[in-house]
Amino acid sequence: MINIAMLGYGVVGSGVAELILRNKDKFKTELNEELVLSKILVRNLERHANNKNRELLTENIEDIFKEKVDIVVEAMGGLDPSYEYVKRALNMKKHVVTANKDLIAEYGYELLRLARENGVTIHFEASVGGGIPILKSINECLVGNQIKSIKSILNGTTNFILSKMNHNGMSYENALELAQKLGFAEANPESDVKGYDAARKLSILSTIAYNIRVSWKDINIEGITEIDSDDFRYAKLKKCNIKLLGISKVFNDHVYASVMPVMVKEDSVLGKIEDEYNAILVEGDAVGDVMFSGKGAGMFPTASAVFGDIADIIEHKNEKSIVFGKEKAKINGSWGLKGKWFMRIKTDNRMNVIESLPVNFKKCYILSNDFSGNKNEVAAFVISDNENAVNNYIEKIGDKKCVKSVKKILVLDK
Amino acid sequence: MINIAMLGYGVVGSGVAELILRNKDKFKTELNEELVLSKILVRNLERHANNKNRELLTENIEDIFKEKVDIVVEAMGGLDPSYEYVKRALNMKKHVVTANKDLIAEYGYELLRLARENGVTIHFEASVGGGIPILKSINECLVGNQIKSIKSILNGTTNFILSKMNHNGMSYENALELAQKLGFAEANPESDVKGYDAARKLSILSTIAYNIRVSWKDINIEGITEIDSDDFRYAKLKKCNIKLLGISKVFNDHVYASVMPVMVKEDSVLGKIEDEYNAILVEGDAVGDVMFSGKGAGMFPTASAVFGDIADIIEHKNEKSIVFGKEKAKINGSWGLKGKWFMRIKTDNRMNVIESLPVNFKKCYILSNDFSGNKNEVAAFVISDNENAVNNYIEKIGDKKCVKSVKKILVLDK
Repeated sequence: MINIAMLGYGVVGSGVAELILRNKDKFKTELNEELVLSKILVRNLERHANNKNRELLTENIEDIFKEKVDIVVEAMGGLDPSYEYVKRALNMKKHVVTANKDLIAEYGYELLRLARENGVTIHFEASVGGGIPILKSINECLVGNQIKSIKSILNGTTNFILSKMNHNGMSYENALELAQKLGFAEANPESDVKGYDAARKLSILSTIAYNIRVSWKDINIEGITEIDSDDFRYAKLKKCNIKLLGISKVFNDHVYASVMPVMVKEDSVLGKIEDEYNAILVEGDAVGDVMFSGKGAGMFPTASAVFGDIADIIEHKNEKSIVFGKEKAKINGSWGLKGKWFMRIKTDNRMNVIESLPVNFKKCYILSNDFSGNKNEVAAFVISDNENAVNNYIEKIGDKKCVKSVKKILVLDK
Repeated sequence: MINIAMLGYGVVGSGVAELILRNKDKFKTELNEELVLSKILVRNLERHANNKNRELLTENIEDIFKEKVDIVVEAMGGLDPSYEYVKRALNMKKHVVTANKDLIAEYGYELLRLARENGVTIHFEASVGGGIPILKSINECLVGNQIKSIKSILNGTTNFILSKMNHNGMSYENALELAQKLGFAEANPESDVKGYDAARKLSILSTIAYNIRVSWKDINIEGITEIDSDDFRYAKLKKCNIKLLGISKVFNDHVYASVMPVMVKEDSVLGKIEDEYNAILVEGDAVGDVMFSGKGAGMFPTASAVFGDIADIIEHKNEKSIVFGKEKAKINGSWGLKGKWFMRIKTDNRMNVIESLPVNFKKCYILSNDFSGNKNEVAAFVISDNENAVNNYIEKIGDKKCVKSVKKILVLDK
């Protein structure tokens, strides 16, 4: 008999409880194990008064640890009190499954080592890409590869908003409102729209893929709050779509890592990922490009991954926990290779700005005034040997009195 | 120390040998295990006279089994003598890794049980989708799901040929010739172009996904040899592309399974899979749609999957082998749900055929003579409640003297 205690009974927790129920018989038949959900920690008992599992509920964390428990599922989210509870569970030699990317991005190194010291494991497949089997695939199936790069759409909320802006011509504000109405965005959407959520997931993914610690705080993070419908109009000129991409790549002495809006070809694999879907494109030295996509959030997709972790623990009870590499990566948020960038420069002196472009970039494609429809803006695609040169130009031009603001977007159109 | 013996030293075998070499240090550091490739069976020693591993080579299978061996990698392909050698290895309690879909599709049930009886495992991730981590994902990560359907592109050769016909306007014959020149197709391409290869992979995938045995011989198999450039011209009318799809779906009392050319939307996920790439779209009741894509064949993509299996065995030495379900699925090769089909009817009496369409189908869209450019052909899209009704119509119309031939293609344009 396997006793499972769950911390939290919101969207994810309810999904996990349901999957445990649905799979009881299967487990009995195939693995000769009985799965029992023995206790569930909730914040407020009254809110669950009519729940079918109400006799399992408790508001008291001590009730969780009093019980005979084999696996603790953390489905509360956030850091406080998840962090303390998970540490306590590991110290009590309980296996832990969590869907909490904040927790793993922040304390993964410490918690994984703590698990190993205690001879138990901590699993967190659901923390990246929801139901997509990505961490196990990298860790186990692609273990013979050196992973060279990751390109990913890791946040369903922003991908939904960008999809609506692109296909339905919605403004950012209206698309966000719709996402909130449909439950894809939270009342306070900051962590999603500013790119923090994607950065935390990219850090977990990269840390595992490159076996070196990639701290999310070192990642160059730009959200989608500055993207407007004109950006999409410009993108279409190059048959591109705009996606919030998490990109990382290993160089000899550093890791490039960034989360930012990027123009990608409309008909590329990432360009076709719509609405709340996530996608991860992994480049390995042996396997080449492998792509994974699916729903990155939601009750059952997340529960699917959590349940996979529970099954993994049951089947491989005596296995050592994976750990994050000791070494910390030197992160560079600036793209060191040749690339293409799109720029929009607000100015009351277009000629002055236009003149400066061919002087600073070997190749530039300046959009005509007619197209931009905005007399106070210069829009251009430029090719540069690296991002620093673009940033230097922006700094220089931004100092001019005639320039009000400069916006830049990376273009991946190959 | 883990001793690995390999049977076969062609494309896949060479890739595996190389990955074992590349990952020696990693294994020593991380798992404290030394990987040793101890013996390689080849057909003809002389052909490898200058190989760097020549001291490991032997033409004698007895040399393989004389050595202390932990894992036998079968990289010969085909059934004879692979089947006998793999049985012998399992009976000698050696773990086996194979990339051989013919072997698993034909003898998987028997070999997996033999492995379990002997307390060892047989792994075959590379047999489906090359380097794409699909079997482990379904088996382990998606274990909390009931898998409802699979749509897949499982053969790189045919996908390459169809891509060239679609994008470069090549004829089937020229595209096949190009594929052979580039090494994507074999001198005798029958198993690929007739769909047998894809059917074997679909049977393995479906057997695992639905936990019921899906014999490849029961699958409805159509190859791509009858597809011509006019089919692509017609497909474009519906913004479709033509792909050789392996489709399976669970119904209450049977499994639908077929491999056949299908019109899919150009901008759908499967419609965008080009050239030698494979893709598998899995629908689970909890996770929803999850999609996997990558290179389905080739030296290193295949070796990547074989190496993942080797690592899996080393890390989970005492694990029980998975087995295929005891029950045999009742397979239906005819689509029992409402659907859309495209038909081309060669006839010297167009009016006669055209008249018959609206009588037999509630909805039909008959292409004008101008478009088809062929006075002796009627081309139409029809909607029918099930495939049998379409087949009945084809049988009936085919009996008419004025009808020379009828071709039908399923359309998945939603």
